[in-house]
Amino acid sequence: MEGSHAARREAVSFGRLVSFTDGVFAIAITLLVLNFEVPHIHHETERQLGHLVSELAGDFGAYFLTFAVVGRMWVVHHRLFSTLETFDGRLLTLNLTYLAMIVLVPFAAELIGDYGGEPLPAALYGGVLAGASGLNRVMARHAARAGLLHPDHREEVRPWAAAGALYIPGVFLASVPVAFFSPLAAELMWTLLVVGRVVYWRRGSRRAG
Amino acid sequence: MEGSHAARREAVSFGRLVSFTDGVFAIAITLLVLNFEVPHIHHETERQLGHLVSELAGDFGAYFLTFAVVGRMWVVHHRLFSTLETFDGRLLTLNLTYLAMIVLVPFAAELIGDYGGEPLPAALYGGVLAGASGLNRVMARHAARAGLLHPDHREEVRPWAAAGALYIPGVFLASVPVAFFSPLAAELMWTLLVVGRVVYWRRGSRRAG
Amino acid sequence: MEGSHAARREAVSFGRLVSFTDGVFAIAITLLVLNFEVPHIHHETERQLGHLVSELAGDFGAYFLTFAVVGRMWVVHHRLFSTLETFDGRLLTLNLTYLAMIVLVPFAAELIGDYGGEPLPAALYGGVLAGASGLNRVMARHAARAGLLHPDHREEVRPWAAAGALYIPGVFLASVPVAFFSPLAAELMWTLLVVGRVVYWRRGSRRAG
Amino acid sequence: MEGSHAARREAVSFGRLVSFTDGVFAIAITLLVLNFEVPHIHHETERQLGHLVSELAGDFGAYFLTFAVVGRMWVVHHRLFSTLETFDGRLLTLNLTYLAMIVLVPFAAELIGDYGGEPLPAALYGGVLAGASGLNRVMARHAARAGLLHPDHREEVRPWAAAGALYIPGVFLASVPVAFFSPLAAELMWTLLVVGRVVYWRRGSRRAG
Repeated sequence: MEGSHAARREAVSFGRLVSFTDGVFAIAITLLVLNFEVPHIHHETERQLGHLVSELAGDFGAYFLTFAVVGRMWVVHHRLFSTLETFDGRLLTLNLTYLAMIVLVPFAAELIGDYGGEPLPAALYGGVLAGASGLNRVMARHAARAGLLHPDHREEVRPWAAAGALYIPGVFLASVPVAFFSPLAAELMWTLLVVGRVVYWRRGSRRAG
Repeated sequence: MEGSHAARREAVSFGRLVSFTDGVFAIAITLLVLNFEVPHIHHETERQLGHLVSELAGDFGAYFLTFAVVGRMWVVHHRLFSTLETFDGRLLTLNLTYLAMIVLVPFAAELIGDYGGEPLPAALYGGVLAGASGLNRVMARHAARAGLLHPDHREEVRPWAAAGALYIPGVFLASVPVAFFSPLAAELMWTLLVVGRVVYWRRGSRRAG
Repeated sequence: MEGSHAARREAVSFGRLVSFTDGVFAIAITLLVLNFEVPHIHHETERQLGHLVSELAGDFGAYFLTFAVVGRMWVVHHRLFSTLETFDGRLLTLNLTYLAMIVLVPFAAELIGDYGGEPLPAALYGGVLAGASGLNRVMARHAARAGLLHPDHREEVRPWAAAGALYIPGVFLASVPVAFFSPLAAELMWTLLVVGRVVYWRRGSRRAG
Repeated sequence: MEGSHAARREAVSFGRLVSFTDGVFAIAITLLVLNFEVPHIHHETERQLGHLVSELAGDFGAYFLTFAVVGRMWVVHHRLFSTLETFDGRLLTLNLTYLAMIVLVPFAAELIGDYGGEPLPAALYGGVLAGASGLNRVMARHAARAGLLHPDHREEVRPWAAAGALYIPGVFLASVPVAFFSPLAAELMWTLLVVGRVVYWRRGSRRAG
């Protein structure tokens, strides 16, 4: 009975952490739409229409790409947290820091959208994604070491906590200094990473539930 | 016991997916209010008052219509997901893409509100709703084929996954090229669709729970 | 077993409706903070400080009042929905319309804050609150008539569904035409109503859980 | 059976209160990102880059600090509410007032960010945090007195409800008049408080779950 009560309390707390996290993700991903700027025109001529279409096309590209990035991060977070049996204060702090990175993604994407060819936005975008993916790995490692994983899922988390998982944050971190020399090269690095990641996760998602 | 634990994990995951989806819907529908522009007047004269009332009336019309559209989509999504027993990685991706469309609705509505008679906003609005309603049908079909439905609800989903369900996204998609010739004709197409849909769903909603 | 499954499905659906509603309320109440305008000053002199304080004081008054109004509406909604055993399609539609009113409250409050002495903002504010409180009564009456209430709570809802519950929306509705003659008189009507309501609900909240 | 039903109803209500609170926290913490201003430049020169970096650095400092403050408040609230067995109308009202303070934190932080050296923003920030931390203590005391705590957690809440818990809101309150003489001195008071608080909570968080 004692144990059952403790389990209930823990479940409630864990539920609050997860629902708070989901709330932040949901808001961050929805705020992406605020990056669209309503064009200030009054009478749409053929020429303006062409200009509008090309401007919106760029915005849409950035929108769907960033939506995919934040959505993918939510899926990864979702997978990590579904393996946890409990959590501790340190994971709480790590998760908050992780969320602080997620919330920055729409802002970094807006800067990229407005000043795509400039070094600073590219460096910021790379840095934020390095931080978020790095913290994901730190959380996985901490959960594994501190015994927070559910016995059934210990094996599952092993690859995330391994040194190989540093690959993704490593590429993003490396793109930060690269961005100051060539923003385009940094963007190329991310593209290669995303392509590789999609291929990698596609295999994984077949088993997801 | 194994099975019971698996059920719990799945339920948690499914709950997170649903709560994330609800969060995005709730934010998207609330952001509609940001489309109202606070008029910049200092002393309200009779004439300005009349102008204000007519301006706000247009904003209110667009607001309630779009609120109804997003609300209806939430109800449809809610119905589809209540028939699911589980989900897979593909449904997750489809659902994220669907949400990316939902989040665009307030922006498309704002463009319509600001440039109602122009081709591009009408084409965008039609395209976004074609995407969202089309993805709804793709999700229903995938759920039916991949065996994600609860045994009790297999029959229920059949009409959504059938070719007949292409009617709604089809009309929206057809309205995109129409909008470039006559935005008014595109808006007429949606109005007819909404009227027909309300009649259709009114029958369905009597049985809803 | 059939019944137990049906109950689970219904509970999930009801949970989604409630969590969607809570999400909209949470966002609408948080958007109130966007009504604060960051003053555009560079060096704060004694005189500017005094001006700033008086300007912020007005904003704070409006903020806390509207926060209280939306908060109170959430509590009232929460009480009504805690008496429900199930819901139907009509209640879903009524609830969406109710939420469309709630989302308008921050906008109406912003207009009041910017143009307090003008007729239109006062009329709008009165109209929105008339709509929201009126819909609350319509939902209570529909729930009672359509047999959606839990057997234990039928008596509880009776006063909300009774004609006496028209008092609050009635006063708000009456304030709309009054506002066009004297915005101040409309604001006085609300103040009297809020004072009376606080006294009335204070008694009720003692029993709340 | 009666008791079991009552428990279910209460749980639902408590769940709604908690989820509404989490929603407000999640939105308030995400709105912090709106405080970043997208710089208006067109071609980034070496000099503009340096200016941008230093401007963004200040924004980032404020962002992470305020994210930590709101995040910490959420953790504290989470801990208090996990000790509750039930709640009453007064706690509901206290919690709403508390949330009204939380929602103000991003606005106060924005003012600090824009006018860091001025008295009014510092006074406002101090006042808002005094209000929030003070209300936290009022809620803990009310919960203890009104018998809302779960029997297992009565001891746990004692220090929060004790006079010693007035230390944090006391320092924030004292910083309000100090801010009018020296904003820097007020900021120093908060820094000392945060440092002390981190040390204090670090011990506590080891036991958290």
